[in-house]
Amino acid sequence: MRNFTNVKDIGSLDLAVKEALEVKANRFAYQHLGKNKTLMMIFFNSSLRTRLSTQKAAMNLGMNVIVLDVNQGAWKLETERGVIMDGDKAEHLLEAIPVMGSYCDVIGVRAFAGLKNKAEDYEERVINQFIKYSGRPVFSMEAATRHPLQSFADLITIEEFKTKERPKVVMTWAPHPSALPQAVPNSFAEWMNATDYEFVITHPHGYELAPEFVGNARVEYDQRKALEGADFVYAKNWSAFADPNYGKILSKDRAWTVDTEKMALTDNAFFMHCLPVRRNMIVTDDVIESERSIVIPEAANREISAQVVLKRILESL
Amino acid sequence: MRNFTNVKDIGSLDLAVKEALEVKANRFAYQHLGKNKTLMMIFFNSSLRTRLSTQKAAMNLGMNVIVLDVNQGAWKLETERGVIMDGDKAEHLLEAIPVMGSYCDVIGVRAFAGLKNKAEDYEERVINQFIKYSGRPVFSMEAATRHPLQSFADLITIEEFKTKERPKVVMTWAPHPSALPQAVPNSFAEWMNATDYEFVITHPHGYELAPEFVGNARVEYDQRKALEGADFVYAKNWSAFADPNYGKILSKDRAWTVDTEKMALTDNAFFMHCLPVRRNMIVTDDVIESERSIVIPEAANREISAQVVLKRILESL
Amino acid sequence: MRNFTNVKDIGSLDLAVKEALEVKANRFAYQHLGKNKTLMMIFFNSSLRTRLSTQKAAMNLGMNVIVLDVNQGAWKLETERGVIMDGDKAEHLLEAIPVMGSYCDVIGVRAFAGLKNKAEDYEERVINQFIKYSGRPVFSMEAATRHPLQSFADLITIEEFKTKERPKVVMTWAPHPSALPQAVPNSFAEWMNATDYEFVITHPHGYELAPEFVGNARVEYDQRKALEGADFVYAKNWSAFADPNYGKILSKDRAWTVDTEKMALTDNAFFMHCLPVRRNMIVTDDVIESERSIVIPEAANREISAQVVLKRILESL
Repeated sequence: MRNFTNVKDIGSLDLAVKEALEVKANRFAYQHLGKNKTLMMIFFNSSLRTRLSTQKAAMNLGMNVIVLDVNQGAWKLETERGVIMDGDKAEHLLEAIPVMGSYCDVIGVRAFAGLKNKAEDYEERVINQFIKYSGRPVFSMEAATRHPLQSFADLITIEEFKTKERPKVVMTWAPHPSALPQAVPNSFAEWMNATDYEFVITHPHGYELAPEFVGNARVEYDQRKALEGADFVYAKNWSAFADPNYGKILSKDRAWTVDTEKMALTDNAFFMHCLPVRRNMIVTDDVIESERSIVIPEAANREISAQVVLKRILESL
Repeated sequence: MRNFTNVKDIGSLDLAVKEALEVKANRFAYQHLGKNKTLMMIFFNSSLRTRLSTQKAAMNLGMNVIVLDVNQGAWKLETERGVIMDGDKAEHLLEAIPVMGSYCDVIGVRAFAGLKNKAEDYEERVINQFIKYSGRPVFSMEAATRHPLQSFADLITIEEFKTKERPKVVMTWAPHPSALPQAVPNSFAEWMNATDYEFVITHPHGYELAPEFVGNARVEYDQRKALEGADFVYAKNWSAFADPNYGKILSKDRAWTVDTEKMALTDNAFFMHCLPVRRNMIVTDDVIESERSIVIPEAANREISAQVVLKRILESL
Repeated sequence: MRNFTNVKDIGSLDLAVKEALEVKANRFAYQHLGKNKTLMMIFFNSSLRTRLSTQKAAMNLGMNVIVLDVNQGAWKLETERGVIMDGDKAEHLLEAIPVMGSYCDVIGVRAFAGLKNKAEDYEERVINQFIKYSGRPVFSMEAATRHPLQSFADLITIEEFKTKERPKVVMTWAPHPSALPQAVPNSFAEWMNATDYEFVITHPHGYELAPEFVGNARVEYDQRKALEGADFVYAKNWSAFADPNYGKILSKDRAWTVDTEKMALTDNAFFMHCLPVRRNMIVTDDVIESERSIVIPEAANREISAQVVLKRILESL
């Protein structure tokens, strides 16, 4: 594997999950692969889980890790040609990116959607520029439109906990105080559509995701109906995708919050969320603290999904 | 040893000091213990000595280290149940802490007293929550009421420099421009009380420490009288503990500054301070630069106290 | 080698370049030298290339690395004796520096010129205090008046690309929107003067560098004349050195920007710059993207210059 930005890069999901479980049982068995190899993790947005789990995965593989925080726009890169750079942008990405590539073997990039300009976000300009100019394998630590390390961890978790061959997985929108990108729900839909699960998406009108991510999923606007018989409930907030509301909050309706009464509609479903989660907005205390909540093992699997991706990239160097 | 937050956790001080000197002589002899083990250092407050020395100790033991700075309240955790999280707190500690635990083997936490609410500070809420919810061994890198890695380093230093079986150790309050927690003096008193040294505390009226820390120490309000015949002078500022002045500055009286004339009252005592130190407030240039000042070897022993603690935790994993 | 702050510390340039090429071909061959040795990198100013390349070099040598950011003056050190430290400076360098030295084996320091007080800058107060008080070997990661790791990387790059025994190297001033220190041009001049190359400096009137750095270089105020027959064009901005304009911007004249027409005056010269570079101020897009631009290999050689310096320091421990 050269780059990892979406579900297609991982190939067969069956093989990927099998490899994940193998890695999870023997985390330190592949240190010959990472010896004298350096991972550079570049964060244009802040991170807790992704930073810690990816760093841990790299260390499991015997790699050296360099972390570069370019949070809060402190490091402004010019992206256009022809600009007279006499303002606050100190460097052009055409110099910055190849230089970063020259000091490492693998690059991880986190760069969220700005939610101002849909076309720009959905072009995935930042991560694509790293792929194009760094000269190194690049993997996404959450880009503008996808968060594939999260989705892969979600898939591993479902495979570990499922008791039916083809579980029913329901992704439900839930309210949140601020405007969030669509990367996690887009990506989760993309990965679920690549399985043979029964996959349903439920959200208020106006929150439709991009058609290329919805794919063949069933979209159900009635949350209760969607949850009936579910084996896994995957809650997540996102801002609107459809014009003219791109990046906007259309609702903070707590009638969409996942609570005990709604979980009672399911087939004793497991509750999932990528974290961080706003309690009593997305989900009640009771549900997230219940025995059916698997948010902590789900987060723990972030180390495993990252390790499989890094392992495959190292194998292909 | 599972957790390390106070003097009781270390057991016999004689054995602990013996082990410290052994570790100091052979810092790299225990790398099998740390192989493939990850230390996560979590800083809710900034740090120089503690961060550097603990990281060095962990590397001496062959551990991997992940540093997480949550300084300046940038990462706000909700701590209550039932709150509708629609404000600026993005995550509940009941998710955040177990997730951090899932990516490492040992956790070090620094979380100072807020000095606003005595009951809250003296409950040691933050570090106790890490102990309760992280699923990992936890050690204090300075908590609200104690700084045991510092006190252990202080003990090692006294043992290295003492020329009498039972030295006289005097902890003296000294002035400082801002309000400081009682963690260092509390902890130093706790450790000194666990030795058979002669231990005296001196401070202006109103600066009494909590009785559980003062223990059987002699409290002497006349600094000069306290210093007579001292073998070690341990200077430190702290804010008031007693109600209604908790966390307040009652005095900045430079008559309490440790100077050459006061050191002349001692039995040629060594001068100690945990650093950073405000010169000419806590101590004069002349005293801290004198041949009897052992603040640098004292700071260097922070690496050793941290290494013994980490070694014992690793041995018990 | 004990310390590395200027060209004299490296000794014979021929041997240094030879060693660099050897290290470049076998980066991981010297890991026995760095085993259980810790590099502490201390940044008083922010850094991209220097931080990444030096960290990579240290890891190539098997060293542990601790990074300490004291950017933006967050950590204010008192430097004078006799001051009553009741203000915002929490620590005296006479304590801070030896403590840092006690937790590591080698120290790298970055501390730029303030451009307010020429005498203070040209005394190199910060790095000299580390040399004097840390008890450890110290190397410059760019100090007030020199950037020797950059100059050494520049030399390696010229040696790799030159096709004549004694190439003509031209360092040209170019415009920039903010006031920059003289460290890079000073240092480049110092290193070029230590070779047998033909070395020419060109800049507008008023931008004369300090005589001890200009040395025997030819200074030519007519940029076009200077560039004639050049084999390497080294562009860089700097602020004025000469009184009463120290640290000031005297010109932003884009007539000094290096463009295709000016490169045509040279002997098909290679274009060099230490990066980050302001495009269309220092150099046009066309020139920096041309086949004769070697700014990326030049930056990549920063890893090599740092590794040679660290290797020599480790060998002398």
